[in-house]
Amino acid sequence: MEEAVKEIIRLGHGSGGRLTNELIHKTIKKYLTNDILDKFLDSAVLVMPDSKVVFTTDSYTVKPLFFPGGDIGKLAINGTVNDLVMLGAVPLYLSLGLIIEEGFLMGDFEKILQSIADAARLCNVKIVTGDTKVVDKGKGDGIYINTSGVGHLINDFAVDIAGICPGDKVLVNGYIGDHGAAIICARGIIEFESRVESDCAGLQSMVKELLEAGVKIKFMRDPTRGGLATVLTELGEHLPYSIVIEEEVIPVREEVKSICEFIGFDPLYLANEGKMVAVVAGSDTEKALEIMKRNPLGKEARIIGQIEKGRERKVLMKTVIGATRIVEMMLEDQLPRIC
Amino acid sequence: MEEAVKEIIRLGHGSGGRLTNELIHKTIKKYLTNDILDKFLDSAVLVMPDSKVVFTTDSYTVKPLFFPGGDIGKLAINGTVNDLVMLGAVPLYLSLGLIIEEGFLMGDFEKILQSIADAARLCNVKIVTGDTKVVDKGKGDGIYINTSGVGHLINDFAVDIAGICPGDKVLVNGYIGDHGAAIICARGIIEFESRVESDCAGLQSMVKELLEAGVKIKFMRDPTRGGLATVLTELGEHLPYSIVIEEEVIPVREEVKSICEFIGFDPLYLANEGKMVAVVAGSDTEKALEIMKRNPLGKEARIIGQIEKGRERKVLMKTVIGATRIVEMMLEDQLPRIC
Repeated sequence: MEEAVKEIIRLGHGSGGRLTNELIHKTIKKYLTNDILDKFLDSAVLVMPDSKVVFTTDSYTVKPLFFPGGDIGKLAINGTVNDLVMLGAVPLYLSLGLIIEEGFLMGDFEKILQSIADAARLCNVKIVTGDTKVVDKGKGDGIYINTSGVGHLINDFAVDIAGICPGDKVLVNGYIGDHGAAIICARGIIEFESRVESDCAGLQSMVKELLEAGVKIKFMRDPTRGGLATVLTELGEHLPYSIVIEEEVIPVREEVKSICEFIGFDPLYLANEGKMVAVVAGSDTEKALEIMKRNPLGKEARIIGQIEKGRERKVLMKTVIGATRIVEMMLEDQLPRIC
Repeated sequence: MEEAVKEIIRLGHGSGGRLTNELIHKTIKKYLTNDILDKFLDSAVLVMPDSKVVFTTDSYTVKPLFFPGGDIGKLAINGTVNDLVMLGAVPLYLSLGLIIEEGFLMGDFEKILQSIADAARLCNVKIVTGDTKVVDKGKGDGIYINTSGVGHLINDFAVDIAGICPGDKVLVNGYIGDHGAAIICARGIIEFESRVESDCAGLQSMVKELLEAGVKIKFMRDPTRGGLATVLTELGEHLPYSIVIEEEVIPVREEVKSICEFIGFDPLYLANEGKMVAVVAGSDTEKALEIMKRNPLGKEARIIGQIEKGRERKVLMKTVIGATRIVEMMLEDQLPRIC
């Protein structure tokens, strides 16, 4: 018995002609529709609440495209939303640039569009402009997605790393390394029974709550590629102080620890897709922690360290056995194509 | 004698770790630098002159990466600039998303960065935020580029296709099909002595001049993928009139005609990267033409047709031999990966 012929993406779907038109109107429009996008112009006209606009871009090349807890579509929305959010913005509008490999299954494409639509709704952003290109078979890897985003600033927030001083606290909103660990399992690098799910999520509501409550956040960043260690070492390079974190209090799931031990990875460098690291004024720490813990994405929020005088530009970690180790910047990723 | 080892892009350059940092600071920064980008944040904070923001995105997958008259970098700037310009915007800021294939020559990467820098300067836009991903060898085709752009509206311009009426004129700013023809030659599809150059250029100054002079433009679009025919057939679908163009007056270079005859292509469907098609109120036509002709990109501007009553939703072409032919929407591109 022959299998039914599955519909696939053809080169012509990226041609700008009738097939592109069909793909947009019959397929993409089923999932993505709003008053601005439906005008089908090459650009969108947006009315912003404020003349200050936050603008960001990210391309997503994650492998595999589908993994426990998400897929490339969900990632492409939440990742770019989080980049805006980390600058203190309310994300409003996203663009969607698709580079699809010829022969990609239409069914998989539609699953990804559904994820994009769901994530955009949850993050309260509109996809207002897009572009579809198709590349020859063997010149891509299923699908690559670029999303760019615009948003407006909450309370005129600005990152203020010059204001960071000893006594400020370092917070994270929950378990680190879940996304990286989920990708490791999804790639079949190891066989592991209890599969960890990616933490892929948009942080817009939590950050909005923190900023609207007046919490003095001096720095925040989502620890994606390169993980917590990379965010802290990069920040450390700009500080005349040291950042001291405590291994014991950094939240890491037991399964993630096991996965890391098994393959010799360090959870500090594993990617996260729904986490934030924040440096908060010491006096605001308790308020910040309380607000984070009230949010579904911050139940396991913790103070993991603080800014201290001396040994400038260094990130130090007090280990569980009582030693102090320097946290180094990673040379190459432990795991390429994580996002 | 051994050849010197050429520097290449490695997977680690997209890891988010030290190699990414090096690529940004030692290579990219040499070519792209401005007060906003140099903050090296994940997002840029822009101060817009107006609360109305025009936003667009495009991915570039052109093959080959280098062609007569340009390369993928020049294309990625001018193409996105033109998408903004066609909505009546002054382009201000661009994002730059790079997806590079492992093993890509660093020298070629730097050539592309130089083109990006040059084109951005000519178009008077700043690249304010970016992202670099590296995919495994064999999962890309050298480099793919996404640029998204934001701009602000000139004179509160809005496309007004509902206002299009019989007597309105259709204008183009010069020879059509040059980009498509240049790509055909660059791919070696045919051997052709007089190589045509791509028309790749940003249209921001010409459109600004037209709008500031108060020319009543009811519609404008850059005829890229699918060419002039695609822009007109798509517009035709939304009009209760017909669009009648005259083959004899459509400017096509002799070389481009020869190339098309040789391989059975139609210049009407060939891509352009520095052209605009505009529908202008009949009474403003002479003024529009004069302004276009004064601009270096509009020396060969022409009125190629007009809006007429009857035979609605159709694009008709009066041919040089006196017949009238229906211009159809193209099914698949004559040439994939043209931009």
